[in-house]
Amino acid sequence: MHEKTTQDKAAAWLYGRHAVEAALGNPARRCQRLIALRETAAEAETLLRGARAKPPRAGVEVIERRALEKILPQGAVHQGLALAAEPLPATDFESIAAAAATPGTPQTVVVLDQVTDPHNVGAILRSAAAFGALAVIVPEHGAPSVTGALAKAASGALEEVPLLRVANLSRALEKLKQAGFWSLGLDEQAEQTIAALDLPERVVLVLGAEGSGLRRLTREHCDFLARLPTRSAMASLNVSNAAAVALYVLAHRS
Amino acid sequence: MHEKTTQDKAAAWLYGRHAVEAALGNPARRCQRLIALRETAAEAETLLRGARAKPPRAGVEVIERRALEKILPQGAVHQGLALAAEPLPATDFESIAAAAATPGTPQTVVVLDQVTDPHNVGAILRSAAAFGALAVIVPEHGAPSVTGALAKAASGALEEVPLLRVANLSRALEKLKQAGFWSLGLDEQAEQTIAALDLPERVVLVLGAEGSGLRRLTREHCDFLARLPTRSAMASLNVSNAAAVALYVLAHRS
Repeated sequence: MHEKTTQDKAAAWLYGRHAVEAALGNPARRCQRLIALRETAAEAETLLRGARAKPPRAGVEVIERRALEKILPQGAVHQGLALAAEPLPATDFESIAAAAATPGTPQTVVVLDQVTDPHNVGAILRSAAAFGALAVIVPEHGAPSVTGALAKAASGALEEVPLLRVANLSRALEKLKQAGFWSLGLDEQAEQTIAALDLPERVVLVLGAEGSGLRRLTREHCDFLARLPTRSAMASLNVSNAAAVALYVLAHRS
Repeated sequence: MHEKTTQDKAAAWLYGRHAVEAALGNPARRCQRLIALRETAAEAETLLRGARAKPPRAGVEVIERRALEKILPQGAVHQGLALAAEPLPATDFESIAAAAATPGTPQTVVVLDQVTDPHNVGAILRSAAAFGALAVIVPEHGAPSVTGALAKAASGALEEVPLLRVANLSRALEKLKQAGFWSLGLDEQAEQTIAALDLPERVVLVLGAEGSGLRRLTREHCDFLARLPTRSAMASLNVSNAAAVALYVLAHRS
């Protein structure tokens, strides 16, 4: 059940305090079940009372720890809370372009090319929320489904930053270009560091898979290539850490 | 076997290409076994020929995938390579102080207070290596053991940046103070942002657990408290992402 994507209406199990609280606080969410343990039942009731999402019909269901762990993926750090919620409505390019229309402030969109680890995608969503990026765009193929693990790593940011799945990344970059964005590919081999660039107001930050980096076609769609100022190409960062640093730099460009 | 700490001489299983290659390249490592699959045997032989570590007596052992997976923790992304290596010799304060003695360059040491997820500690070691930090210090209690999972997340950085386990963090901060370091606690509630501070040459970056943050005693040992310039206290970063951004800022302080 937790393997479904945003494209279908089947609910996904979200778990962990932040992910569950944020989903219940999101008016765009339709919740099917809210599960707690005896020791977290009161907390779940409080969250439900404050919910802006469409609440589950059955209210809070209190079950045994073992039953909860059967529902969730092995090793899930659930903190005694699980929520079955329908996927969020898909975001389209028009809404991103509209959000980007506020002039005078730097606008950033993140594109992830073949970042397959749900923890990394979740952590990048979280950094995108923290540094005010407009959206995260991933390909339909070569990106993890919106599972509980991704939502947990996003720690609520899944409700704040639209995650857009597109059939064709190159076409998405072209569309963003038409909306006034310039694309900046992060590339360990690039000569310039990201802070040295004179960046325009609207930037798409493009990140590839760790190790192999940006694919040729994606790289060719980038207007700029830059690296992070690490000590050497060998001393690279985890992709979510690289994204966090790049988003920090982009949020503070003048 | 993979749950041992640096304090004992029992070997830990390291796995994954980067972690294994880096350990074999480290003259301070004593290796007991190097295991590969049939399809990674040639790669293992190449790594072994270039090894600067004390090599395993039996050379490369080729085993079946299922047998390898039995040795390693469930779900370990081993890429067909596993190395049983004795823990690295413990680093002491004196060597950190000696390394910090190079004048005229910013020197950073990282202290982690109750960061318990091995993936986070590993990723922080990796960022510490990338941004040239001298060492990462963790408490003996309240920090993960040096497992394969930590080493895999560190992606080789475990061989580059000393990981120091201390009985008492407050005392460690005092000792670093005597060696000319000022301690900077990262705190979401702080008024100043990290980039706004006029920082001295030698800085200890102190990070607490996600959520609860710095413990009172640790906080009291900090000379500065600062936050990252995220949009709100709610929009926080994953602790390894926060560390990466802070290390970036510290590496580029003038």
